[in-house]
Amino acid sequence: MTPFVFHNPVKVLFGKGQIEGISREIPKGARVLLAYGGGSIKTNGVYDQTVSALGKAGLFFKEFSGIEPNPRFETLMRAVELARAEKLDFVLAVGGGSVADGCKFIAASIPFAGDPWTILSKGAKVPSAVPLGIVLTLPATGSEMNAYAVISRAETSEKLAFGSPACMPRFAVLDPDTTFTLPARQIGNGIVDAFVHVLEQYLTYPADAPLQDRMAEAVLATLIEIAPQAMAEPPSFEARASLMWCATMALNGVIATGVPQDWSTHLIGHELTALYGIDHARTLAGVWPGLVAEKRQTKRAKLLQFAERVWSLKDGAEESRIDQAIARTCGFFESVGVPAGLKSYALPAETPSIVAKRLDERGGLPMGEQKDIDAKAVQRILTLAMGL
Amino acid sequence: MTPFVFHNPVKVLFGKGQIEGISREIPKGARVLLAYGGGSIKTNGVYDQTVSALGKAGLFFKEFSGIEPNPRFETLMRAVELARAEKLDFVLAVGGGSVADGCKFIAASIPFAGDPWTILSKGAKVPSAVPLGIVLTLPATGSEMNAYAVISRAETSEKLAFGSPACMPRFAVLDPDTTFTLPARQIGNGIVDAFVHVLEQYLTYPADAPLQDRMAEAVLATLIEIAPQAMAEPPSFEARASLMWCATMALNGVIATGVPQDWSTHLIGHELTALYGIDHARTLAGVWPGLVAEKRQTKRAKLLQFAERVWSLKDGAEESRIDQAIARTCGFFESVGVPAGLKSYALPAETPSIVAKRLDERGGLPMGEQKDIDAKAVQRILTLAMGL
Repeated sequence: MTPFVFHNPVKVLFGKGQIEGISREIPKGARVLLAYGGGSIKTNGVYDQTVSALGKAGLFFKEFSGIEPNPRFETLMRAVELARAEKLDFVLAVGGGSVADGCKFIAASIPFAGDPWTILSKGAKVPSAVPLGIVLTLPATGSEMNAYAVISRAETSEKLAFGSPACMPRFAVLDPDTTFTLPARQIGNGIVDAFVHVLEQYLTYPADAPLQDRMAEAVLATLIEIAPQAMAEPPSFEARASLMWCATMALNGVIATGVPQDWSTHLIGHELTALYGIDHARTLAGVWPGLVAEKRQTKRAKLLQFAERVWSLKDGAEESRIDQAIARTCGFFESVGVPAGLKSYALPAETPSIVAKRLDERGGLPMGEQKDIDAKAVQRILTLAMGL
Repeated sequence: MTPFVFHNPVKVLFGKGQIEGISREIPKGARVLLAYGGGSIKTNGVYDQTVSALGKAGLFFKEFSGIEPNPRFETLMRAVELARAEKLDFVLAVGGGSVADGCKFIAASIPFAGDPWTILSKGAKVPSAVPLGIVLTLPATGSEMNAYAVISRAETSEKLAFGSPACMPRFAVLDPDTTFTLPARQIGNGIVDAFVHVLEQYLTYPADAPLQDRMAEAVLATLIEIAPQAMAEPPSFEARASLMWCATMALNGVIATGVPQDWSTHLIGHELTALYGIDHARTLAGVWPGLVAEKRQTKRAKLLQFAERVWSLKDGAEESRIDQAIARTCGFFESVGVPAGLKSYALPAETPSIVAKRLDERGGLPMGEQKDIDAKAVQRILTLAMGL
């Protein structure tokens, strides 16, 4: 276990009917930017519950809608302009991870002195942010309980991450009922997203962190257990509740304490979303089989542990257990409707070299927990994944 | 899973050398009450590191030593007087759970308008508290990352709990090196304390909370795994690090989210400490075999799950698996030097009725996750435990 700092002050309001609680959480007298996505919250009752809670607290608010999946810098800057013009001083994000991420960027940009794009392109420091609250409607990214966000720029086909303690939400409302109108595709994506978040923090090398390992395995095993009921129509409320809490716990820092982390599946995946518009979770399930084939030796000890503890594979030769663990993981992704491998997207043959070049140019290589994934390795990973 | 609010803003600084970090965490210009226990921190270097960090930050401080195990109201009020007289506005607790608990009470009492005893005796609301930081030197109570404290009053042989969000520490420093001078008895106590904290939140009834169950099992299994190396002389740094993180995660609210809780082993145990001065953890291991015998039927489903997942007992008749799980748990307590059962303390024969009467008079009955442990049940639990 390496030294670490853990600090997650997000207040989580979890369960049926908790949206009402925002009336107590947003400071009195705040001028609220109510930001959301494509308007699905208007048909499933979440918008009404939110506006009712704001009204109950007597809060002034202005709406901004149209934050798209993989939220775009260009869109978000219009929200920043609105907030500055109306002197809004609290951002309330209502939606999934894209709305949450977009609102973190909005919150950081409102008081930012320079060009907010530099927060993403140059890692410019975020000295302060407007306070932010989130009403989550899609369990997946874990953004509701961390300080990170991923933002895209259409103009340059870029998808870049940033994070700042100033962007940690003040509160997050997680009501499983809000997920009941989601299409199956988004639930499947959410399950895969949460699962791969855990793998990025777990499937590295042994680091004398037995509690963190078991907590990561707890999230993985639970996702596997509840996936069928979470995907069913009608879904089980309890399964959706567990999915929601799994997705949050997967990326709120708890399982990351003092352990090595990988994140190369994500970094490669972001490029595929930026270039070809593939859903985030689908890039993860697409890239992961290539990544794990490439790094099978350096991840060997943890692959065997993953095989034993998550997939109950205790017998037979080690290579066979690893093969089976990978196959079962891919089968799990497919079971929730997400292809394992990239073949089905018929990507251009030059994709591996394009992605490797983009990552390299941005200074992101070498990456992985061993810092040994260079441009050649990225190409091998993608070539392999594109054949699956 | 029942609706819940989770909010734990404690900043944890974990690892070797982290005490230095308090120089950055305590606000500039603060007037610090440096509070500790019997002075062991003066011989193991923790005092020197702390004073050096305070000096580095140029912070004014006054010392208060002598906070005893099961910290006493009478002692703590002397610290409150000192803090008020010297206008101290930050409390830095350096020690184990007793010092941490005592300092929460000090922090709450300094600005308290009425008689601070009413915080304990009448549950008087704590509207505010002086900010508090903790340098932990004994992994056990989890007090470093929650808002709760247990305080004793010598005069009336009472041991009472209170909690307030205002008493949540601003930061907690967890450096496993600080535990290296602890006697084996305190490490054994700490392991049992953390283990029983988890049992109180886990060994209840199934509540559709599969992630919380697995996270609780993660702490239990890790404590069992690392106990021998944590107890060894010299101990393993890594085992002590895991013990420290287990004890914190056992009681920081994560595994408690949305699940029923018991706490009757603690409530009965507190009476035994108050009456006879038995170490806190020893009262837990002492009472637990009686509690689990009494509540075997209502806890049956979780006992079977505990047997299977924590003790790998999957075969044989259900009653036998439960028997074995209880026997192994008792054996685990004994393996770290803590007796399972109360026989060795040769308590007065009237103890069961005295304890039941005290709990009843204070309005604490019925208790347990089913609210079905009444005075008669308390007597049966203690009678049984006193025979073991």
